Amino acid sequence: MFLWPVRVYYEDTDSGGVVYYANYMKFMERARTEWLRGYGFEQDDLAKREGIIFAVRSIDVEYLRPARFNDLLQVSVQLKEKGAATMKFFQQVISPGTNPPPGDVLCTGAVRLACLDATTLRPRRIPEPLLTEIVCDR
Amino acid sequence: MFLWPVRVYYEDTDSGGVVYYANYMKFMERARTEWLRGYGFEQDDLAKREGIIFAVRSIDVEYLRPARFNDLLQVSVQLKEKGAATMKFFQQVISPGTNPPPGDVLCTGAVRLACLDATTLRPRRIPEPLLTEIVCDR
Amino acid sequence: MFLWPVRVYYEDTDSGGVVYYANYMKFMERARTEWLRGYGFEQDDLAKREGIIFAVRSIDVEYLRPARFNDLLQVSVQLKEKGAATMKFFQQVISPGTNPPPGDVLCTGAVRLACLDATTLRPRRIPEPLLTEIVCDR
Amino acid sequence: MFLWPVRVYYEDTDSGGVVYYANYMKFMERARTEWLRGYGFEQDDLAKREGIIFAVRSIDVEYLRPARFNDLLQVSVQLKEKGAATMKFFQQVISPGTNPPPGDVLCTGAVRLACLDATTLRPRRIPEPLLTEIVCDR
Repeated sequence: MFLWPVRVYYEDTDSGGVVYYANYMKFMERARTEWLRGYGFEQDDLAKREGIIFAVRSIDVEYLRPARFNDLLQVSVQLKEKGAATMKFFQQVISPGTNPPPGDVLCTGAVRLACLDATTLRPRRIPEPLLTEIVCDR
Repeated sequence: MFLWPVRVYYEDTDSGGVVYYANYMKFMERARTEWLRGYGFEQDDLAKREGIIFAVRSIDVEYLRPARFNDLLQVSVQLKEKGAATMKFFQQVISPGTNPPPGDVLCTGAVRLACLDATTLRPRRIPEPLLTEIVCDR
Repeated sequence: MFLWPVRVYYEDTDSGGVVYYANYMKFMERARTEWLRGYGFEQDDLAKREGIIFAVRSIDVEYLRPARFNDLLQVSVQLKEKGAATMKFFQQVISPGTNPPPGDVLCTGAVRLACLDATTLRPRRIPEPLLTEIVCDR
Repeated sequence: MFLWPVRVYYEDTDSGGVVYYANYMKFMERARTEWLRGYGFEQDDLAKREGIIFAVRSIDVEYLRPARFNDLLQVSVQLKEKGAATMKFFQQVISPGTNPPPGDVLCTGAVRLACLDATTLRPRRIPEPLLTEIVCDR
């Protein structure tokens, strides 16, 4: 399971004293970007050379416990399905340290991504080298 | 159906040329806040006088078409269920002008909100005057 | 003096209980956009038809008093200088209601904008109709 | 000179194709937070134990060259002055790789911070151990 650390700064919090609900989606995207980079694929290269971008088609987020200012979180990425032009992920935002590893799950996300033509924004096949390389988590 | 206008500024967009996916959740929260204000309830008052806040427990977002810089959108709020300590909403982000009114649906959100104690963040009953006042949409 | 209302939502605040310092710059840009729209110029049209965008070259911000969740603010725009390819503004974020109109100044910004070619990002002359139309405040 | 790496994600960019101007202020705050952590001081501890927070009183930002999606930047922190209740910093956002180290300066910031009582938001003396520890850059 791919894990990416995210520190909570003031910019991420709101006056309720916790991380603002939309900002977990930023954390999840950072982790997906780094997961892809871990396979050797840079999204600016993919846009320039292959003319493709990835767009979120849907996301279902459950908020279980709040994260707070200065927390050091871990964000997981698990590829659950891959199709010719789509990927499905399950992601967790985890607070380490309290419970047994990997810690408390604060928030989960089920994300569906589509591969699009960077110009027309129409569906495009995921480039073969990328599609072959990425591996689904059980 | 309650509608709240939202203008797309540079702050809302990303380098893909469209509104960044997490920012639709900001638009939806602005509309829910204004829907509640329309019933005469101010959230800073509710926090100070009643000691309660509302927190999102879950949100399912579908992205259908992108919004772009300078678009003037409408964000709908429909209360679908109300319980002692929870509310369920269905929301749409709509681009007027192209299709017959109210226009094209760009994005939908199914949102579950919980009423919490502002200090302990534990579930609390929604204050009676508020619970009585708000009306479910069919 | 052009004034544009801005409501403070949760998205704008941080866990210090006040508006996050960078977000005043969003408020100021919204007001500049609406000031320009008030003269009949839409920035997406300017980009498409004239191939120009405006970019901030510098901003000096003073923070005097904090804004809080649910405040209804006014953001002022005063054009102080205009050149062939630049504009200088003075802006204020104002909280009405407490002091005599227009109220308490929470934050000020001195902003220098450049007109750029949308593709090369090199300086370009401000289109003549726009340059003629906009009027400096004393 | 303290340097902190910042990766540019989609969340940081706008439809102009570059980093949104207010987001450099987020990068600068992340670096200041990590600079303080480097001295062993955690801001959530300072708030809880000492009852103090730091607030930006003013910031002057110059934008020289744009940063783009996926860039890996370095953000510098240089303490220039320290007083009983204030600190002055000079910060740079740097793009490595092109020019001789440390690279191209994209953006600079002159920042004045005040130490405040976390409850009253009134000026407070910087706690002695912290004030003694932090060292000005030439």
